Amino acid sequence: MRIAVCAPSTPIGPDDAARVRALAAAEFPEIELVVHDQCFAQEGHFAGSDAQRLAALLECANDPGSDAVWFARGGYGACRIAEEALARLDQAAQDKPFLGYSDAGYLLGGLYRAHIGQPVHAPMLADIRREGGEEAVRRTLGWLCGQDKAALEPSLAREKHPVVAFNLMTLAMLAGTRLMPGLAGHVVMLEEVSEYLYAVDRLFFHLTAHLGGVAGVRLGRVSAVPENDRPFGASAEEIARYWCARHAIAFLGEAAIGHDAANRIVPFGAGVKR
Amino acid sequence: MRIAVCAPSTPIGPDDAARVRALAAAEFPEIELVVHDQCFAQEGHFAGSDAQRLAALLECANDPGSDAVWFARGGYGACRIAEEALARLDQAAQDKPFLGYSDAGYLLGGLYRAHIGQPVHAPMLADIRREGGEEAVRRTLGWLCGQDKAALEPSLAREKHPVVAFNLMTLAMLAGTRLMPGLAGHVVMLEEVSEYLYAVDRLFFHLTAHLGGVAGVRLGRVSAVPENDRPFGASAEEIARYWCARHAIAFLGEAAIGHDAANRIVPFGAGVKR
Repeated sequence: MRIAVCAPSTPIGPDDAARVRALAAAEFPEIELVVHDQCFAQEGHFAGSDAQRLAALLECANDPGSDAVWFARGGYGACRIAEEALARLDQAAQDKPFLGYSDAGYLLGGLYRAHIGQPVHAPMLADIRREGGEEAVRRTLGWLCGQDKAALEPSLAREKHPVVAFNLMTLAMLAGTRLMPGLAGHVVMLEEVSEYLYAVDRLFFHLTAHLGGVAGVRLGRVSAVPENDRPFGASAEEIARYWCARHAIAFLGEAAIGHDAANRIVPFGAGVKR
Repeated sequence: MRIAVCAPSTPIGPDDAARVRALAAAEFPEIELVVHDQCFAQEGHFAGSDAQRLAALLECANDPGSDAVWFARGGYGACRIAEEALARLDQAAQDKPFLGYSDAGYLLGGLYRAHIGQPVHAPMLADIRREGGEEAVRRTLGWLCGQDKAALEPSLAREKHPVVAFNLMTLAMLAGTRLMPGLAGHVVMLEEVSEYLYAVDRLFFHLTAHLGGVAGVRLGRVSAVPENDRPFGASAEEIARYWCARHAIAFLGEAAIGHDAANRIVPFGAGVKR
């Protein structure tokens, strides 16, 4: 299985790639990991210019020889190239899994809307940097090889609705844009990192206004919340419950996703739970 | 002229109120400033509970004896009470100016959508804390008294379209909600504070997708940008121009608004330029 890695948002370093290549060689001999040079490019905030990031993504996705596209890292930047990428993906991209989370959600959402490929919320290559990050990387590679039965987010086993998973900020920013997928009837899993709780409340105010018709919301980890000059007065779960209630959206409880090594895998939609 | 002050978001201190009362007494004897006790309440992040903040806003707005409603301070919280407030405003609120900016934009936007009162982007009471803050406070009071001809944002003098002014984050969060006013044909002025440039880019990605049909965008100050681990690679104006171009929105240049003492006044709509 050949996995093509590109970086639509921010760059990784050669060390990150080397560590993951070594892990894959040792534990997943059936995997050939092809890390595009663009992953190491840098232009301002991004892993190369918009044109470079777009070209690498198209090369990886449209290569008939690659079996999956793995996003190297989040950060910010995928939304700038997503629309043009979608317009130029070809037949070779059609049935491929695309894996990532956080900022990669702009692409996962757009792909899902366009019915291209199989968008999958999953740990990325750069997660190797985290404490316990090898476990996260192993989870994605193992799931791709069909070996890791414990990789999937646990509620999926009994879920009857199609499911998507997003970073809260990312889905809030997608709402109303040409990348936003229709989510009626879906369970929407949300996680967040490094945002004040007042910002989490503000994002839920915005996003829940766009989630009419969803089957429900599950909340993943809301981690690394910065300390404010005073306590917000409600937990992240209370915030989620409050805004769901205001919009008559079912709050379904926790989701095992987040910006951490325990981040589980969520294939978008239903019926693709290898 | 009686000005009723309430705090739909976060609290002020008694010192803030005392300083502004003294300034008003000394320079604007025709003004009676009535600062609602709720302005000093505190519950978690907010100036009292949602119920307290809502009640105070309704008291101020629905009081036939008050001539204007002045929001004390931004922060975060107005979006939680805005919908219910709009539903309960009565005839007494109909022609009153409502003045504020930043988080108060949720109310200004909702009022404008509902055609209630005269929403006005203007310095708030808490601006007295800023360096040069007396000038900002004086600008709002002077404009209310019809004295300060230099209070208005300068481009208004030659603008033929109706104009609104918002904090970028606030308008991005309003988009698609039940508080979002129709802005077709309007010039939209935007300012931001304390956001990374990648977040400014992300907000423009989102917001410009919702601004179809506007007459154009003007950019106010984007201030107190935190230093990131690397330069973003584009200025705030370049970011605004980029996203406006992608959506065929006219970029009209600067606006003299921002989170600072020089923040000028923008009455929403057209023809109310006292």
